[in-house]
Amino acid sequence: MKIAIIGATGMAGRSIYREAAGRGHEVTAFVRDLNKAEGLLGPGRFIKKSLYQIGAANLHSYDVVINAFANHTHPIENFDALSYLLRIGRKIDSRFIFILGAASLKREDGQLLYDSLSKLANNEAWIDEPKFGVDALYVLQHDAQNVNWTAISPQQEFVDGPASDYRTGRDELIYAEDGKSHVTTGNIARAILNEIEEPRFIGERFTVADK
Amino acid sequence: MKIAIIGATGMAGRSIYREAAGRGHEVTAFVRDLNKAEGLLGPGRFIKKSLYQIGAANLHSYDVVINAFANHTHPIENFDALSYLLRIGRKIDSRFIFILGAASLKREDGQLLYDSLSKLANNEAWIDEPKFGVDALYVLQHDAQNVNWTAISPQQEFVDGPASDYRTGRDELIYAEDGKSHVTTGNIARAILNEIEEPRFIGERFTVADK
Repeated sequence: MKIAIIGATGMAGRSIYREAAGRGHEVTAFVRDLNKAEGLLGPGRFIKKSLYQIGAANLHSYDVVINAFANHTHPIENFDALSYLLRIGRKIDSRFIFILGAASLKREDGQLLYDSLSKLANNEAWIDEPKFGVDALYVLQHDAQNVNWTAISPQQEFVDGPASDYRTGRDELIYAEDGKSHVTTGNIARAILNEIEEPRFIGERFTVADK
Repeated sequence: MKIAIIGATGMAGRSIYREAAGRGHEVTAFVRDLNKAEGLLGPGRFIKKSLYQIGAANLHSYDVVINAFANHTHPIENFDALSYLLRIGRKIDSRFIFILGAASLKREDGQLLYDSLSKLANNEAWIDEPKFGVDALYVLQHDAQNVNWTAISPQQEFVDGPASDYRTGRDELIYAEDGKSHVTTGNIARAILNEIEEPRFIGERFTVADK
């Protein structure tokens, strides 16, 4: 399939790019810095554009657009990126895959992970990122009219690492055999490519956890 | 003050434009059709730009930007317009005034007006506009980081008509002396200009009703 990746040089994006290319898909990465992209990903099909330079005309020919953009310093930009891409997604048929955070997943007691994080002391420096991730899911679930979308949340610990065995779920934190909630970039990438090749979660958010 | 109006040729926009100009403010209308604007508003300061041609560079010199844009045929565009303007609003100091619908107001029984509308039979043709209005308020209340904003909701009946006496409230439907919930464009315009000249609802939504 023809797959476009936005944010392909980030932690998740790199892994998704490699998984997609490794499976023989025709992958294009929209990047801000061509040298950085080639340094991290090797020779490939790169288009130099920042997010807001990308329009419907640039994306309509792709079967799938994966948004792996993530700004940890100014997390409101993650929310704005989602709104912007939804507006493009309303105009074209391409399927959009959004990577959200884990804060909108439920703990075993039924509370959102975000709700417990929001009560921690001294969380000012980092609470915006989970907060805007929760709101991004709200907007996807309520305002993605005419957009062909699927979203994926990692687990509480999202770490750079190889693919292994994974489990999927819908809205819950999932605890691996070691009792912790975690997933590697390799497993996220594998799950996304499996979802692209055999869609199961159209118009839904799902989550992936290491086994 | 220097005031920019987006959607100045619409029902609410025309009234706001006249009220602002009549009070001696320096008013600029961003319009798609200059002839239509001059026909409806008389000679004035018009800039021909559609919404997505307007950027931070076009708005930063205004003290206040009023968004009176409303698309009744494709109401998701009202939601998208809000998201787009918030992104601009994060970059500049201008105060933004958003006109929302009345569906996010509470009835006397505590239910949102939207909740009762959503249960009516055969509402498919028109329910999207109140629905996306409710979501617009959600986004304003949760995701307007770094935006200087105020929102205003009319009442259940929003009709073209002159200013008279009005009351303001926060989140409730307000019933006039005739027992109905209504407001004229003239009263909305007067209330917005009063709020611009003497801010009372910074970072909040308020509502206006005929007395």
